[in-house]
Amino acid sequence: MGRWQPDARGRLERAALELYVERGFERTSVAEIAERAGLTERTFFRHYADKREVLFAGSSALQEVLVGAVAGAPEPVAPMEAVAAALEAAAGVLQERQEHARRRQAVIDANTELQERELIKLASLSTALADALRQRGVDDATASLSAEVGIAVFKIAFRRWVEQDQHGRRDRHMDLSQFIGASLAGLRAVAAGA
Amino acid sequence: MGRWQPDARGRLERAALELYVERGFERTSVAEIAERAGLTERTFFRHYADKREVLFAGSSALQEVLVGAVAGAPEPVAPMEAVAAALEAAAGVLQERQEHARRRQAVIDANTELQERELIKLASLSTALADALRQRGVDDATASLSAEVGIAVFKIAFRRWVEQDQHGRRDRHMDLSQFIGASLAGLRAVAAGA
Repeated sequence: MGRWQPDARGRLERAALELYVERGFERTSVAEIAERAGLTERTFFRHYADKREVLFAGSSALQEVLVGAVAGAPEPVAPMEAVAAALEAAAGVLQERQEHARRRQAVIDANTELQERELIKLASLSTALADALRQRGVDDATASLSAEVGIAVFKIAFRRWVEQDQHGRRDRHMDLSQFIGASLAGLRAVAAGA
Repeated sequence: MGRWQPDARGRLERAALELYVERGFERTSVAEIAERAGLTERTFFRHYADKREVLFAGSSALQEVLVGAVAGAPEPVAPMEAVAAALEAAAGVLQERQEHARRRQAVIDANTELQERELIKLASLSTALADALRQRGVDDATASLSAEVGIAVFKIAFRRWVEQDQHGRRDRHMDLSQFIGASLAGLRAVAAGA
């Protein structure tokens, strides 16, 4: 192992996103990311399996936050209340990084491979959320359904949050947490009409 | 172009699924699929881009059924009622092919690449469903949310339907349509507690 590099992961993540925005994901190499970060390719591969993965570094932290919030939900557990608490906790973590999230999403939206990786990450989050609900005694079908629906709500809210300023309404700027609240209200309304 | 082969797509699809079940997806080649179907590799590639795609041949037909049902929903359109009608219509098409669906799902569950392709197909179905709702005048956020939630309901119902006989309860056998009804009822229940 090489010598310890302070904040190597963060530096690689920032360098990668900069380059993906400047030149596009396809036209950026791992060597260039490492160079921009002032690190070696070897260090890159010690932290990330490939240049896609560097964009999804936050995914396991997000999973821990979601699972932790479900595990800490008060008894008795109402499945969608626990899911809502988990989404709120995730919003708290993501809110500070809106500009990063917006740029990252633009890179993902421009590349099919990255969209695929994102779908896989979201499916993993849903599985982890369902498992956390089962651990709290929620039955199998309800756990799966609540988790899938929760991730659907999160996807919609997240997209509205990152896209809001494209429409030039900075005066009506909303937090991710507010978009999640609005999507949960939307869910109650559409589900009541099912 | 070669001469016309009666039901070439169906023959290739059946041959592929047989071989994937017998030997596994990875260990089956396009040449073997064509041979089993009594056709040439050239004919295979006239119908399918690769050996993954042959498992998802039904996806565009399913999309047409979903979109058609939303387009034909009575005025005024309650979004989740239109989605429920679309899922019912899809169930009608899939119900006859339960054994095929069960074997196909086992092949997909054993292979990460196929699971990825399945997630992409489901995301496309959700996008098409949301577009169909927008065409009917449903606002953007409600259309996306109803479509995502509808596909979540469909995923859960479909899985319960294909897996039901693994638990040896043939006496309590349910149609896909019944599982969809149960998942929609589950949705109303969990959403009310959100």
